[in-house]
Amino acid sequence: MVKNYMEDVVEDLVDKLWNENTDKDFCKCEKCKNDVIALSLNKLPPKYFSSDKGNIWTKLIFADNQKMTDVMTAVAEAMKIVKSSQRH
Amino acid sequence: MVKNYMEDVVEDLVDKLWNENTDKDFCKCEKCKNDVIALSLNKLPPKYFSSDKGNIWTKLIFADNQKMTDVMTAVAEAMKIVKSSQRH
Repeated sequence: MVKNYMEDVVEDLVDKLWNENTDKDFCKCEKCKNDVIALSLNKLPPKYFSSDKGNIWTKLIFADNQKMTDVMTAVAEAMKIVKSSQRH
Repeated sequence: MVKNYMEDVVEDLVDKLWNENTDKDFCKCEKCKNDVIALSLNKLPPKYFSSDKGNIWTKLIFADNQKMTDVMTAVAEAMKIVKSSQRH
């Protein structure tokens, strides 16, 4: 079984942003959330592992400010795109 | 639910290559196969969709010679790497 561990990083961040987001105009439905996750992942380099070593990589990423900044930038851009063109 | 539809394209191609491969020195165990798939996907642009529109994209890719050449190149490189450094 192979998995892109970047998914865990993006989903964790989007969950946090979803809960903290106070923008009344931002739709929080599941469809918009999945669109943000998909768009973000298409902007970020995939990180597939064929073993659960990916869990170690995930922990390292959360501690890497530059990489987390890249992830946050991708998610912020995706949120802007989804907000301006909601498809639900 | 979001999914990287590039996974279907790579897995389909690796399955074909696994069956047709006559290289006695090439290990065909599941671990080596997953390593080839993971390595290939890390070399290719992700194509996440948050809907099953991804299935339409997959059909388009199989008909796109340039894109399939890119996928084949990534898989061939991954097979070389795995053959030279088996981890099972």
